[in-house]
Amino acid sequence: MDPVLEKFISRNRDLVDEALDKFVPSIELEPQALHEAMRYSLFAGGKRIRPILAIAAAEIVGADKSDIMPLAVALECVHTYSLIHDDLPAMDNDDFRRGKPTSHKVFGEATAILAGDALVTLAFEILGSVELSRIFPCHRVLAVIRDVAEACGSRGLIAGQALDMFFEGKAADDATIEKIMLNKTAALIRAAVTSGARLAGADGAQIDIFYKFGEKLGMIFQIRDDLLDLEGDPKKLGKAVKKDGKRGKATYPSLHGADHSRRLILNLLVEAKELIEPFGETAHSLVLLTEFVARRVS
Amino acid sequence: MDPVLEKFISRNRDLVDEALDKFVPSIELEPQALHEAMRYSLFAGGKRIRPILAIAAAEIVGADKSDIMPLAVALECVHTYSLIHDDLPAMDNDDFRRGKPTSHKVFGEATAILAGDALVTLAFEILGSVELSRIFPCHRVLAVIRDVAEACGSRGLIAGQALDMFFEGKAADDATIEKIMLNKTAALIRAAVTSGARLAGADGAQIDIFYKFGEKLGMIFQIRDDLLDLEGDPKKLGKAVKKDGKRGKATYPSLHGADHSRRLILNLLVEAKELIEPFGETAHSLVLLTEFVARRVS
Repeated sequence: MDPVLEKFISRNRDLVDEALDKFVPSIELEPQALHEAMRYSLFAGGKRIRPILAIAAAEIVGADKSDIMPLAVALECVHTYSLIHDDLPAMDNDDFRRGKPTSHKVFGEATAILAGDALVTLAFEILGSVELSRIFPCHRVLAVIRDVAEACGSRGLIAGQALDMFFEGKAADDATIEKIMLNKTAALIRAAVTSGARLAGADGAQIDIFYKFGEKLGMIFQIRDDLLDLEGDPKKLGKAVKKDGKRGKATYPSLHGADHSRRLILNLLVEAKELIEPFGETAHSLVLLTEFVARRVS
Repeated sequence: MDPVLEKFISRNRDLVDEALDKFVPSIELEPQALHEAMRYSLFAGGKRIRPILAIAAAEIVGADKSDIMPLAVALECVHTYSLIHDDLPAMDNDDFRRGKPTSHKVFGEATAILAGDALVTLAFEILGSVELSRIFPCHRVLAVIRDVAEACGSRGLIAGQALDMFFEGKAADDATIEKIMLNKTAALIRAAVTSGARLAGADGAQIDIFYKFGEKLGMIFQIRDDLLDLEGDPKKLGKAVKKDGKRGKATYPSLHGADHSRRLILNLLVEAKELIEPFGETAHSLVLLTEFVARRVS
């Protein structure tokens, strides 16, 4: 990894981890098993991509990263909740995630469902908290709550998971696969950059750029994910591979093959970088992050 | 039922149903099965107690009920999500609710989980929507988002469900049963009256009254619920009875018997009515509602 990016990621990841620890109830608090389950999945080795994207976008617009931390934490809570619920036996029935047993394997199904429920609720509690509205105008905070809620609602993240399951083993065309990717993955990644920029005070034109950029980045992220399932190293990934094929998941690589998918990623990468070119040097970290997402091996 | 109360409930219920229809995505929208599941449970014959409580509290403080509708809808979405998830096989494993098959029986477990997820998310999307912040100061809207998020988080509703399951078949004392009731039921009922009043512009002293009143009312609601499980009419209730005993649920009637529970309800009823006495005639509907909750047979 590029040393500049490595430093950027590790510094921000530490800050996000610190903020998570501050905002998420301690396991000393009742119900202890519930808080333990929430923290287990939150601290299971996530790369904090969404929080770091929000921070990078906010810094481009000129905000201080410490002010963005409540948003960063809320995004990671939403992301983690979606993973816990997606892994449930009734959903994708996954036993491992990031090299560790999934939540329901450790805490049982009931607690896993509740831990997910608690994390998505906590996200909105944090976004509504005085921490944010002390720093930013409250109409801006409300717009961010809308960004995040829309991204993870029945027309966003949840639609993606529903369609993803619905099309298992069914013939899916490009439009369907794109719809699944846009909802399942791109919606929250787009919300991360958009809401980070919005909180920092971005104007309409800037938000428009981040919106389009976030969508491209989300597509890159998902196609890379599907490629890693097809040909990645299970040890590096911390989870089983070749699951999509077995389940008949509707993915871009399954429809068009690995080579074509790699070319699509490269095209999307060019488009994404072009979009944020107007931000110049301030967007350097975001460019590096985008390249990293396109080439990551885990 | 008192004819004044009957009219108050039926008129408000119609308004809430209309608002629900407006705010909840149509089943024409993709993913259709998901939106169908959300609407199935929302329109399965709920009494709309929490929305009506929010309306009653807001009217006492002087707000127009039509302005409160987004909050009313959000509260019903949160309540319905909690029922869908509580009924899941991994949780209370209930097949019937309000005389109809539960969500997972009709749509399958995966869709039921996602429908619950989508409803709690929709609640915050609606609270963050411009509908509310066009009418009320946005710092007040943010405080209401905190009220609702705290009430349904890991220290509220979800804590209640977690403790309720944890103490199944275990010896529970008064303090434990009270903690379960306060979290599982009273937290959201308290948030309904508090947030209705807050949105309407209640001052600190008024909010304090509604907070204490909501807690009493929530306890009344839950003990009455437990009594109905013990000796209610399954036809009127639309669900099986005597389930708590079979499961060894920690309830007040199971610990102290039906007579003692009825006396406790009457004591709480007196205390609740005393709390809102200072509001005089404007609280008439809320007094009637409280008496209804204490005596309801379904």
